[in-house]
Amino acid sequence: MIKIAIVHGPNLNLLGQRNPEVYGNLTLEQLEAAVAERAAERGAEVEAFQSNHEGELIDALHAAGKSCQGVIFNPGGYSHTSVALRDAVEASRIPVIEVHISNIHGREHFRRTSLTAAAAQACISGMGLQGYLSALEALLDS
Amino acid sequence: MIKIAIVHGPNLNLLGQRNPEVYGNLTLEQLEAAVAERAAERGAEVEAFQSNHEGELIDALHAAGKSCQGVIFNPGGYSHTSVALRDAVEASRIPVIEVHISNIHGREHFRRTSLTAAAAQACISGMGLQGYLSALEALLDS
Amino acid sequence: MIKIAIVHGPNLNLLGQRNPEVYGNLTLEQLEAAVAERAAERGAEVEAFQSNHEGELIDALHAAGKSCQGVIFNPGGYSHTSVALRDAVEASRIPVIEVHISNIHGREHFRRTSLTAAAAQACISGMGLQGYLSALEALLDS
Amino acid sequence: MIKIAIVHGPNLNLLGQRNPEVYGNLTLEQLEAAVAERAAERGAEVEAFQSNHEGELIDALHAAGKSCQGVIFNPGGYSHTSVALRDAVEASRIPVIEVHISNIHGREHFRRTSLTAAAAQACISGMGLQGYLSALEALLDS
Amino acid sequence: MIKIAIVHGPNLNLLGQRNPEVYGNLTLEQLEAAVAERAAERGAEVEAFQSNHEGELIDALHAAGKSCQGVIFNPGGYSHTSVALRDAVEASRIPVIEVHISNIHGREHFRRTSLTAAAAQACISGMGLQGYLSALEALLDS
Amino acid sequence: MIKIAIVHGPNLNLLGQRNPEVYGNLTLEQLEAAVAERAAERGAEVEAFQSNHEGELIDALHAAGKSCQGVIFNPGGYSHTSVALRDAVEASRIPVIEVHISNIHGREHFRRTSLTAAAAQACISGMGLQGYLSALEALLDS
Amino acid sequence: MIKIAIVHGPNLNLLGQRNPEVYGNLTLEQLEAAVAERAAERGAEVEAFQSNHEGELIDALHAAGKSCQGVIFNPGGYSHTSVALRDAVEASRIPVIEVHISNIHGREHFRRTSLTAAAAQACISGMGLQGYLSALEALLDS
Amino acid sequence: MIKIAIVHGPNLNLLGQRNPEVYGNLTLEQLEAAVAERAAERGAEVEAFQSNHEGELIDALHAAGKSCQGVIFNPGGYSHTSVALRDAVEASRIPVIEVHISNIHGREHFRRTSLTAAAAQACISGMGLQGYLSALEALLDS
Amino acid sequence: MIKIAIVHGPNLNLLGQRNPEVYGNLTLEQLEAAVAERAAERGAEVEAFQSNHEGELIDALHAAGKSCQGVIFNPGGYSHTSVALRDAVEASRIPVIEVHISNIHGREHFRRTSLTAAAAQACISGMGLQGYLSALEALLDS
Amino acid sequence: MIKIAIVHGPNLNLLGQRNPEVYGNLTLEQLEAAVAERAAERGAEVEAFQSNHEGELIDALHAAGKSCQGVIFNPGGYSHTSVALRDAVEASRIPVIEVHISNIHGREHFRRTSLTAAAAQACISGMGLQGYLSALEALLDS
Amino acid sequence: MIKIAIVHGPNLNLLGQRNPEVYGNLTLEQLEAAVAERAAERGAEVEAFQSNHEGELIDALHAAGKSCQGVIFNPGGYSHTSVALRDAVEASRIPVIEVHISNIHGREHFRRTSLTAAAAQACISGMGLQGYLSALEALLDS
Amino acid sequence: MIKIAIVHGPNLNLLGQRNPEVYGNLTLEQLEAAVAERAAERGAEVEAFQSNHEGELIDALHAAGKSCQGVIFNPGGYSHTSVALRDAVEASRIPVIEVHISNIHGREHFRRTSLTAAAAQACISGMGLQGYLSALEALLDS
Repeated sequence: MIKIAIVHGPNLNLLGQRNPEVYGNLTLEQLEAAVAERAAERGAEVEAFQSNHEGELIDALHAAGKSCQGVIFNPGGYSHTSVALRDAVEASRIPVIEVHISNIHGREHFRRTSLTAAAAQACISGMGLQGYLSALEALLDS
Repeated sequence: MIKIAIVHGPNLNLLGQRNPEVYGNLTLEQLEAAVAERAAERGAEVEAFQSNHEGELIDALHAAGKSCQGVIFNPGGYSHTSVALRDAVEASRIPVIEVHISNIHGREHFRRTSLTAAAAQACISGMGLQGYLSALEALLDS
Repeated sequence: MIKIAIVHGPNLNLLGQRNPEVYGNLTLEQLEAAVAERAAERGAEVEAFQSNHEGELIDALHAAGKSCQGVIFNPGGYSHTSVALRDAVEASRIPVIEVHISNIHGREHFRRTSLTAAAAQACISGMGLQGYLSALEALLDS
Repeated sequence: MIKIAIVHGPNLNLLGQRNPEVYGNLTLEQLEAAVAERAAERGAEVEAFQSNHEGELIDALHAAGKSCQGVIFNPGGYSHTSVALRDAVEASRIPVIEVHISNIHGREHFRRTSLTAAAAQACISGMGLQGYLSALEALLDS
Repeated sequence: MIKIAIVHGPNLNLLGQRNPEVYGNLTLEQLEAAVAERAAERGAEVEAFQSNHEGELIDALHAAGKSCQGVIFNPGGYSHTSVALRDAVEASRIPVIEVHISNIHGREHFRRTSLTAAAAQACISGMGLQGYLSALEALLDS
Repeated sequence: MIKIAIVHGPNLNLLGQRNPEVYGNLTLEQLEAAVAERAAERGAEVEAFQSNHEGELIDALHAAGKSCQGVIFNPGGYSHTSVALRDAVEASRIPVIEVHISNIHGREHFRRTSLTAAAAQACISGMGLQGYLSALEALLDS
Repeated sequence: MIKIAIVHGPNLNLLGQRNPEVYGNLTLEQLEAAVAERAAERGAEVEAFQSNHEGELIDALHAAGKSCQGVIFNPGGYSHTSVALRDAVEASRIPVIEVHISNIHGREHFRRTSLTAAAAQACISGMGLQGYLSALEALLDS
Repeated sequence: MIKIAIVHGPNLNLLGQRNPEVYGNLTLEQLEAAVAERAAERGAEVEAFQSNHEGELIDALHAAGKSCQGVIFNPGGYSHTSVALRDAVEASRIPVIEVHISNIHGREHFRRTSLTAAAAQACISGMGLQGYLSALEALLDS
Repeated sequence: MIKIAIVHGPNLNLLGQRNPEVYGNLTLEQLEAAVAERAAERGAEVEAFQSNHEGELIDALHAAGKSCQGVIFNPGGYSHTSVALRDAVEASRIPVIEVHISNIHGREHFRRTSLTAAAAQACISGMGLQGYLSALEALLDS
Repeated sequence: MIKIAIVHGPNLNLLGQRNPEVYGNLTLEQLEAAVAERAAERGAEVEAFQSNHEGELIDALHAAGKSCQGVIFNPGGYSHTSVALRDAVEASRIPVIEVHISNIHGREHFRRTSLTAAAAQACISGMGLQGYLSALEALLDS
Repeated sequence: MIKIAIVHGPNLNLLGQRNPEVYGNLTLEQLEAAVAERAAERGAEVEAFQSNHEGELIDALHAAGKSCQGVIFNPGGYSHTSVALRDAVEASRIPVIEVHISNIHGREHFRRTSLTAAAAQACISGMGLQGYLSALEALLDS
Repeated sequence: MIKIAIVHGPNLNLLGQRNPEVYGNLTLEQLEAAVAERAAERGAEVEAFQSNHEGELIDALHAAGKSCQGVIFNPGGYSHTSVALRDAVEASRIPVIEVHISNIHGREHFRRTSLTAAAAQACISGMGLQGYLSALEALLDS
């Protein structure tokens, strides 16, 4: 059975509580459940992981490279600054799609470029939950 | 009936012929047909337009603002340089989702930021045809 | 009879509808009528043109250079990026006064410099309709 | 009776003597007289002040905020460097229109942005005396 | 009883040993004891935490957001580079005051701006232990 | 008796009137009185001075260097641009603590670095009146 | 018979009239005739096109890619700003030689780099008509 | 007996598997064994540690500062972004030699400077295993 | 009799007391006396002025333009930031030689360019008193 | 008889051996012979010189200024960095045309601007031998 | 017999005399003798060359490319500015290892990147003589 | 007898012939004679050297460091780009005064900073011959 990892970065554990006007009211659990449900409809499974630790995210990408066929990756604030995570995306050697809940292009200047997305296959930003579902579909279809 | 505009920018008329290793083999007609089909399944229709002219793209966004409920917009090379198109996205006053066939984050430096995406609701890059379908779904669901 | 061209750039066709809190409620037609009226009082006439197309604006500046004695030019979003329009201002060989309805100095960073104004004789920003009237007076007095 | 302050910044005391090819032959006195005359025609009065001292200009803006209904402000070379004057424009809490005799957009690179204009309501540059008259009209009409 | 968290970032475990000419001779324990004593005098308590791990600091800010009424935060070297910590400060939704033992404005160029301070309520740098005491007083008084 | 100078820069004479949502409702007189009271409790006295003139602030720092044991310095908008004031801080040869009422790290980009703070001993921003009291305590304790 | 397209960008319709001290006295018609004559001597033909519209230039490059064996391209002011034209040069899949009448390296700063030349095969600037003839020879010889 | 720490940063656990054309086929275990062997020949011992966690690397440098006489440090992607690790190198107070397997000077732009190397004693990049052996020799000889 | 103005900028009143290792032990009075003596030997007189106020320095340059034949100008910290003083140098219409006691090229980065020197005739830095004497000789010889 | 100098800069002695995929297979001798032949057909002669030494190239430009009527100059890697050579081009006071074998606009970022071309009359890049022949023709025709 | 060139750049002839606190006390002769001795132990020979002339260094790299199997290259101050030397490294077509005696990463800003190292195989900085020996070993082992 | 070296850099051999409106009519020989004469009056001698070769200038500074007591150095165009010459100035270990005939602060942007002057003791620009005489006096007096 195809397995897709969902790797959530820093502060996403607070989803639904933090800046709801920017990030919406859905909690991380609800979001992950919705993605799992869609995966099940497609005969696949997802494995979700969240950490505020850059190193644990690197570990998670390495692990996914061994046990999964694709990664939906929301690196949060690390997108804009982490060369190490970018290398981990590349090192995972499976397709990685970067997802951001809000539209990073329209926020503060330091959020407008993504070092990690450069090593990913695709990047979706500003579509909330739908961004995760689209990334899932794309990974399953590829 | 809900109507979604697809607005394609410069050089996309050559889709399928130009750099197939970057942009794939699908022609613009095939791509537009696939999006139309998906729209029909959802009980909506699409209206596709392509132009190499910045001014015609602005006109098209203005027109869509009057007759459509959303826009799938691929501004091509104008994404990175056009304040006028950015203003037109804003002026259309309907949801606009920017789509790029290739992953702009991983290409030349001057392609890594998008002025127009800052005024859009969301941005998808690197997912080929699937990016258009995801944008369509998101617009229909919103 | 002295003839002054008014050349309006991208998105100004939506004047009165787009961001009224920034651009006011006056439509383009009302604005042009007010300028024409003032010109008539001074025994001059105006010829107004609006286009979202950079190329048509260049054509219009060239044409004005042949048939008019001055230009009131609002290049909209092209002000900040167009070397070609800047060259056209210079090439028209008649006095050109650049006008912006809102105060470009107080908006987003990319709106704070104007390539085209550098080739114009003067620049007025933030005075709405009055900016056009002042430009007209200045052109008629010079 | 409506009172409008004219606040002139550094080196403008030499108007008419310094670089006449850039700034023209009109002296500061003549310029101020012409503005006063126009104000009188409109039933208003002006109060003119010139100083080469940044601090006196701040004081003048504060004072105008208490006794006048608007300010015509030519900050000269301080436009490009003074955060303190920018704050004073904002702190005056009355409409301020910035005026430059020459077209700052077409001069040396360091003259092309104006920190103070960002806090003003409007900015006119390159229209000589007419710029002052236009600013006066705009303040009286607002 | 009011509880204030003290969150210390990287390398502060070496306080008193590392560069004493820059950071002084006080150890972290002594510093924390002094703050606790002052808190006790004011009828409050403090909860101190130090980590060299960016992720643990994010976790600590999240936790403080749930159990404390304010945070005294010294993000050390992460101040200058961490978007993720900045988001965590914002996400904690309680007052955070950033403190630096040395004066960051007078050190190497890369230490002169603080991403995290932008999301904090206030920032004190260069006052050593006193900076912590002042932050405590401010949090208790607010 | 120990004497501490309080030197206030441009626009602070309007404290309590200008942008109360940013700077609060306290007037400069009230603020100075509160600091004087605290100083008196500690057996010290303060000497307050405000000017909108950069040169007078330099003079004041020089004078303080001769008659006081420390300076609480709020350079306002001059913080970000004045090499001359920075040199004056250095030249005063007594401890200077820079204070800003609002948090400069979280405001416009040009307010995020302070040239003058680099020459001061410490910098406090965002703590309002409390920042002045903390600076006073630190100067008296040092 | 070999066919070479000559594609002229914005403001070149004014050749011979605009800034003759920079661009010389030759009109566009004379220039095109001279190139055609040289082509005829070599048994080739040329097809000349001028437009002030960026979009028409893109169309012309696409068309040339289908009917010609090479392009002599003078993108004028668009050279320095147009990603879309650069993509069109690449998409034409035939040799393109960029030509500028004046020496762009010795003019204003914003004219010193060419985005479009990066996608061309060669670039000649500063040789007037001779630049066109040299480009023609090079295309015919390759 | 002299003890040298080897501290490996992010993604080096994948050595030999990730981008072998850039990083070679040697695994981390083989590399560490080779360094240990060389150390034994010189009568010294090595203690190797790898982590993808920035915080654990800081901890490791602190620990080495207490129990070792030198450190061979490959900070991987953290080299280019981590002020905290740079401070930890400095805080360790023993000689640290930075080693990169590939030549960072010839790779992407963001890999060309190293914040951490600035605090180290020396830096070797592009020599693979040999770089570690050279660093070892240098630390043992110093 | 030829008269040369010496205009000293901010903090130079402290000459001999401030950073003697950078600026030497000579006081301003001694320096001015030495220049006066040399002028007398050459049959000229000097008129010395010092102010910490940018505006007074502008006034002094204007005044010198009317009563002197040349200016020796040390703008101190204003050199690096003042467009207004630069304009005053230009407006004085007599030869101005800029002098710095220390070598500005070898100090902090923000001291390495001089806006005011660009409008002066010459610039001497790093020669202490001798720089003033050389400037005097040059002015008298020109 | 008209004499044209060919001045070749660093590494061009290796032409035909170095990176033939970039620079082609022609040796410097063959290239110079071809240019000489063309010159002879036009009744002119050429004098070729190659050096890897910046100083010898300056000397050669000075010498050419005395004995030749024009220079074909390929400054190689010095184009991008040498102010001294730029001055020498200017100082030669005869027409200089800069030639690059490869298209510098499409290579690494540091090769995209040319300091020396700014002082030359024209610049040809990317045309190989033909670039030299075109430069020769242009010099002989001018 | 394998031959390795040592190519020393500008100012290295003064080794042992210039800034001994940065560069140590070893003279160039002693350094070269030590490398030669180590080479002899390995059955190889070295050929040492020093020049302050950029052109002679280019010549030396070209010559080494013909007669040696590797180069130890210390380009000194030319590392940071010379495109021509970078091209020569590439053109030599044999392995080149760049060596710096001091740690360039920890010195002035303009010494922190190396243009030449980008074309070399490896770079060692901050290890003094040992850097040369390590480079030698690496070249002999490769 | 005290000996002062005069070291002239690139293009100064053409003094009096090249751009006389910038550099004057004096030839290098006349300039050197005038300095020698002044030196003789002071009982000193000068040794003049000119070269267009960066390497020979480095050699000359090294030689002067051994046989002279000071250097008057005009590095011409190398001032702005040469780290190697800067190091040579430092390595000479005798006082070096940099002299420029024209005022570098008022010329093209790339001439406004001097890398070499940062290592010199003083810098004089814009005083023509007098600059050399002043430098000589300063060296003899020190």
